[in-house]
Amino acid sequence: MTSPVPAGRTQPAPVTHRTHHLADGREAVFFADRGTPPVERVADRRPLGERAGHGQVRFDRLTGEWVAVAAHRQSRTHLPPADQCPLCPSAGGRESEIPAEDFAVVVLENRFPSLGPELGELPAPGPAGERELWGAASPAFGRCEVVVFTPDHRGSFAGLAPERARTVVEAWAQRTEALSAMTGIRHVFPFENRGEDIGVTLHHPHGQIYAYPYPAPHAARLAARSRAHRERTGRALMGEVLADESAAGDRMVLTGQHFSAYVPYAARWPLEVHLVPHRQVPDLAALTGAERDELAVVYQDLVQRVDRLYATPTPYIAAWHQTPVTTADREAGWLHLQLTSPRRAEDKLKFLAGSEAAMGAFVNDVTAERTAAGLREAAR
Amino acid sequence: MTSPVPAGRTQPAPVTHRTHHLADGREAVFFADRGTPPVERVADRRPLGERAGHGQVRFDRLTGEWVAVAAHRQSRTHLPPADQCPLCPSAGGRESEIPAEDFAVVVLENRFPSLGPELGELPAPGPAGERELWGAASPAFGRCEVVVFTPDHRGSFAGLAPERARTVVEAWAQRTEALSAMTGIRHVFPFENRGEDIGVTLHHPHGQIYAYPYPAPHAARLAARSRAHRERTGRALMGEVLADESAAGDRMVLTGQHFSAYVPYAARWPLEVHLVPHRQVPDLAALTGAERDELAVVYQDLVQRVDRLYATPTPYIAAWHQTPVTTADREAGWLHLQLTSPRRAEDKLKFLAGSEAAMGAFVNDVTAERTAAGLREAAR
Repeated sequence: MTSPVPAGRTQPAPVTHRTHHLADGREAVFFADRGTPPVERVADRRPLGERAGHGQVRFDRLTGEWVAVAAHRQSRTHLPPADQCPLCPSAGGRESEIPAEDFAVVVLENRFPSLGPELGELPAPGPAGERELWGAASPAFGRCEVVVFTPDHRGSFAGLAPERARTVVEAWAQRTEALSAMTGIRHVFPFENRGEDIGVTLHHPHGQIYAYPYPAPHAARLAARSRAHRERTGRALMGEVLADESAAGDRMVLTGQHFSAYVPYAARWPLEVHLVPHRQVPDLAALTGAERDELAVVYQDLVQRVDRLYATPTPYIAAWHQTPVTTADREAGWLHLQLTSPRRAEDKLKFLAGSEAAMGAFVNDVTAERTAAGLREAAR
Repeated sequence: MTSPVPAGRTQPAPVTHRTHHLADGREAVFFADRGTPPVERVADRRPLGERAGHGQVRFDRLTGEWVAVAAHRQSRTHLPPADQCPLCPSAGGRESEIPAEDFAVVVLENRFPSLGPELGELPAPGPAGERELWGAASPAFGRCEVVVFTPDHRGSFAGLAPERARTVVEAWAQRTEALSAMTGIRHVFPFENRGEDIGVTLHHPHGQIYAYPYPAPHAARLAARSRAHRERTGRALMGEVLADESAAGDRMVLTGQHFSAYVPYAARWPLEVHLVPHRQVPDLAALTGAERDELAVVYQDLVQRVDRLYATPTPYIAAWHQTPVTTADREAGWLHLQLTSPRRAEDKLKFLAGSEAAMGAFVNDVTAERTAAGLREAAR
């Protein structure tokens, strides 16, 4: 069925989507650019076997965190030649993951998911405490999705037509809403890994969404601090930081009507920038149509600047920090994008070695103010 | 002066050390193998300028963590040719970082430190809370040291003569004790990064020690959980895990008289192994002579197994988890080594992409049981 975006989010014309199924039962949600209809009908005729997935999650008593174990993923597709790309349209007799000759944006369940396909509730500790969670793994409940930005194998998010970038934003928002409502999902994380240097295994422009059966550890910690700050002061922690960064000014990169971007004072990476809505919202699904419109523009502006910093495309991780799916976290949290790159010079990468990887103690070789100046100068 | 190891730690013969100074005032502590005298006299005649260092630490209000900013490190030595190695002995008119023609183990202050050389107390939040810590950086108090394992430019810790490995253990222990007593030091972290794949910038076999003016974030979290567990149960968290892993058995790698090694149930990396003392001790300085003797043997055994897993040397981070330098943490914590490698096949590395890097949510493609079986089979 075709679903317009929820009422109350007025837009020039709705971005519509239609959900189809692949040969092995996986969902593929086709989004159309505004003013165009979504792909009406598809037929995936591939002889796909049983669905992969069925990993485990294990509880780590030392840290109190869950770890996913996905032994089935060792054999996943790794940098296939362009003519075998699974994210290109199906054409000329070759059948890819997307059973259509043309499309705008498609979100499909990952064929080699770390989490899922089963959904369910993780066990909770009983009278004997967390020790009960140890040694008996749970199925890796959850869902991993791939967000295909364009049928075009080349390019990147930065180079999409503006209307297409707007469709990608809509896809993230719609998936956040849909995944948050699924059984056992506690946290939805849209992100994009770009560049072989950070381990990207498919070149076709795409992002991903992980829907976890637990709040991801970093999100859980930020949520706990945000709740505590709200209880103590009545205010939102992220809102205070946004106000203070705006007032300080020397780390600001861009300021829009609904969003601002800055390099945070205590940036951990040689390139790190936060894109933050001016209004307190828990996730992308809570943005208005006008906010989504501006987000598509400023996010493209930001990654275009990142691409202008060096002669070659800069590898990055663009991570959407959304609040966990619980009322208290939604009330205290604040959506933001954290874009980071390990690149510290044209030919040098920052590695996470002992201090960062084992101890979480970061050392940044570049000041936030210098990074911000570089991103301001990179404006078109 | 020559200092024997503290009384009460009886050994066949003490490992002795002697502290000298480099041309710019940095300390270089020379350790001798047992039964041999330390280097008596050195003269560093290099025309070294002022000491580098003088970075900042900045407080991150979102996470409550400190981040070091070391802009001066961008120009540090990067993979020099063997004949310009700063960690080789000074010889034939070439003056390296070590002003001696021969030595056993030398610990020297890092010439390009992330922390230090100043020592001092970080500011604490005042009446207005953590916001006060934001926007006004503190000097990067602390100390970074390099532990040179051998005068021989080639090889690795695994290949040291057993007596030399014992001297390295003694150096770690002595430095832990000395650094823990310095003004403002809250946490001492000895580690070894091995392999260009994880960003090593010098091939000469060496480790490092970071002495932080704050408990490193991962250590702080483990310490908080260990304190809470002790308060609730009266027992040590790590001791319970060690007992449960020993009882389960299928992830055990080796069992000595004083130490055991196992792949933890919820391992995050394709190769991860913990080496744990059977007795609750907060840090390496608290080990007895007999424990240090066995540690040198089992640690070498472990890294030798790691090196037999593949045809080429496996990159790894060997991280000593010591408790923060506070009484409550020392009472609840438990020393252990965490050795991890990103290698998931001969030619494949695990990258920390979106889920791990931005969210701290790990996905491991290899089961702990399979990793443990591989390390058991790799016994000589």
